[in-house]
Amino acid sequence: MILLRNIQQDGVPVNLFIQGDRIHRILPYPEEGGLVADEVVDCTGKAVIPGFVNMHTHAAMVLLRGITEDVPLDQWLDRIWAMEAKMDKEFVYWGTRLACLEMIKSGTTTFNDQYWFAPYARQAAVEMGIRPYISFVILDQFDKATAEHQRRKCIELYEKSLDWTEASHLAMSVHAVYTVSEEMIRWASEFAVEHGMKLHIHLSETEKENIDCMKAHNGLSPTEYLDSLGVLGPHVVAAHAIWLSRHDVALLGQHRVNCVHNINSNAKLASGYRFLYDELKAAGANICLGTDGASSSNNLDMLETMKTTALFQKAWAQDPSAMPLHELMDCATVNGARALGLDTGEIREGAIADLSIVDIDNSYFLSPGSFLANLVYTAHSDVISSVIAAGRFVMRDRVVEGEEEILAGARKVLPQIL
Amino acid sequence: MILLRNIQQDGVPVNLFIQGDRIHRILPYPEEGGLVADEVVDCTGKAVIPGFVNMHTHAAMVLLRGITEDVPLDQWLDRIWAMEAKMDKEFVYWGTRLACLEMIKSGTTTFNDQYWFAPYARQAAVEMGIRPYISFVILDQFDKATAEHQRRKCIELYEKSLDWTEASHLAMSVHAVYTVSEEMIRWASEFAVEHGMKLHIHLSETEKENIDCMKAHNGLSPTEYLDSLGVLGPHVVAAHAIWLSRHDVALLGQHRVNCVHNINSNAKLASGYRFLYDELKAAGANICLGTDGASSSNNLDMLETMKTTALFQKAWAQDPSAMPLHELMDCATVNGARALGLDTGEIREGAIADLSIVDIDNSYFLSPGSFLANLVYTAHSDVISSVIAAGRFVMRDRVVEGEEEILAGARKVLPQIL
Repeated sequence: MILLRNIQQDGVPVNLFIQGDRIHRILPYPEEGGLVADEVVDCTGKAVIPGFVNMHTHAAMVLLRGITEDVPLDQWLDRIWAMEAKMDKEFVYWGTRLACLEMIKSGTTTFNDQYWFAPYARQAAVEMGIRPYISFVILDQFDKATAEHQRRKCIELYEKSLDWTEASHLAMSVHAVYTVSEEMIRWASEFAVEHGMKLHIHLSETEKENIDCMKAHNGLSPTEYLDSLGVLGPHVVAAHAIWLSRHDVALLGQHRVNCVHNINSNAKLASGYRFLYDELKAAGANICLGTDGASSSNNLDMLETMKTTALFQKAWAQDPSAMPLHELMDCATVNGARALGLDTGEIREGAIADLSIVDIDNSYFLSPGSFLANLVYTAHSDVISSVIAAGRFVMRDRVVEGEEEILAGARKVLPQIL
Repeated sequence: MILLRNIQQDGVPVNLFIQGDRIHRILPYPEEGGLVADEVVDCTGKAVIPGFVNMHTHAAMVLLRGITEDVPLDQWLDRIWAMEAKMDKEFVYWGTRLACLEMIKSGTTTFNDQYWFAPYARQAAVEMGIRPYISFVILDQFDKATAEHQRRKCIELYEKSLDWTEASHLAMSVHAVYTVSEEMIRWASEFAVEHGMKLHIHLSETEKENIDCMKAHNGLSPTEYLDSLGVLGPHVVAAHAIWLSRHDVALLGQHRVNCVHNINSNAKLASGYRFLYDELKAAGANICLGTDGASSSNNLDMLETMKTTALFQKAWAQDPSAMPLHELMDCATVNGARALGLDTGEIREGAIADLSIVDIDNSYFLSPGSFLANLVYTAHSDVISSVIAAGRFVMRDRVVEGEEEILAGARKVLPQIL
């Protein structure tokens, strides 16, 4: 049992006990309720927040960033795909370890990934101690042989995943309506529903995607097209969802789809920025946040993403009260957990112990005002001093084990894509 | 003489010699040109960038942040003004020291401030070792007695400033066209021109400011109104300049006005975000960046401001190539220096030695792509390990002298405004 002694939870000092992978008890400081901890951590001058749930990543792409900058999504994809053609499992393994290093340093404990060589991404994340949802990416480019090959590979991975422990989870991934055949979209969704899995898909990321879809599918938007295939449901994790009509919003809400907003990526690639947060929420969709791959965004920092989300929501809605801080925090934590069916994203007795310890003994937290305002608007992620995932420390006082080895591994594989 | 040995400048390893307050020589590493340094700093794994010039601050407001959040500018100003009525010189002194602490930690070496109790703001900045432009703020609310009082105080401060060394500078400040009488705007501008000073003013921050100005001044926008008073010129530093017509842009360009973009403040207060960077630049204006006071933005981090600027420029212009990185860097450094008439903002022999040493031996700089992309899009300001202002270290390895004392002082004065 671990005791986080005298840690601030929503401004109140508590003693927080962790047993196994769960938050066991939360008592008002200095009460200890007769519990005996093996390890006591003095958390004076610290606060606790839930671990972030990054709902849309391509983790290993952290190694592709900085190389292709400041071009539109279609040109960007062409260049990225040329680099990806040269990568192998070792590249994905080291890239994912590096991504996990950066995610841990910025307080993320769960991520929903869509990338190649999934078993190696999984291995990397499990070694780093944070929780990946990984997937075989279906991207058949409307080619029957490719589709058949990918279906077979996907089933193989599913069968392997039956041996996995709770340290990792498998999801289904369909790249997007403009890269995957109708047959495979239907199949992936049916397979996901049948086996209780999530279906991770890019949706209406650009205006061009919408225009092309309407041309190809009798005027249907990507959301309407997926609805026509019977694919929409609470198992769907739709990344982006930037270009939506009122009808699209209604459909996503009605089917309780999980919509993942990735503002840094959307803004930097100039894909769009008018994410209909209020409308989607009112319609019944579950709103989560993600960073997208670090080659578009350009990092995996959920705290930065939260601030950028707030700034864009307030700015384009011309309403400074838009995107209330506690809802923003939910989008970055418990809403993602809900999307994935995980009992985490909250500091609550019984929940999985995924949490960050935040250093509040500095100028950024001097203000007697809102803790969340200080955290999101003022501070950066370097105030996160330690991170616990499923009850285990994955960072202590800014130190993540193996950092040097990870940087060396990343430097070794980088040349293969240049 | 200080030698920064083996430091990367634009990707090239150099030896950089500092003598007094100037960059003396820059030689390709390992050449030392027979120069003998008193202090040699090994900068292997480090890069050098110019110190940032933050062109619009209300430094001591760092103590007001977090208290009034997520309301529009007019309501926000009402609440802030109520708090400001309670503050004294000690509050401004500690607030400015705290602001300087945060500015130093994020690589700023010059700031252009507009706030109350200016001599105490000056003292604080000089003690911290960075360069303030401070000013007596003219804000007469169209009251003749107030105007006369402020004019007298302003002249007193000017006379005092004649004894100041180069460690600080005085500017004129006029709050805005909606708070200052025509007579005082004219007087301040004439005084500034006569004595070779800058004139710092808020301009077209909100749509409401424009509408009110047009009602009050025969349909003239704030820019047109200032032009009608004969006030526009290269001595003017116009903060915000968000709501501009084509005619406004032409006037600001033609008169070589310095326009300061403060996107974090504008977005958070939902004042606006369509800053006409390309148009203003093409017209001939000098574009700089600022953070605004930390109670609106909510920090003084120029690197964060640079990223947010890039994201908004690309997003609303729907052009991923908008706001090229090297121009963005100029806006944050040399353009501000040019506005203030300072020989700084560049890493160049003979320039004032205002610079940051950036730690590039980490994952954020792994990419073999653009250094500026890694710095602005990927990293945060905690990669800035040391800062030199006017040839003197003001931060070494993330340590700023007196941090504990500053936090204690800030905690002591905070209650007076609550």
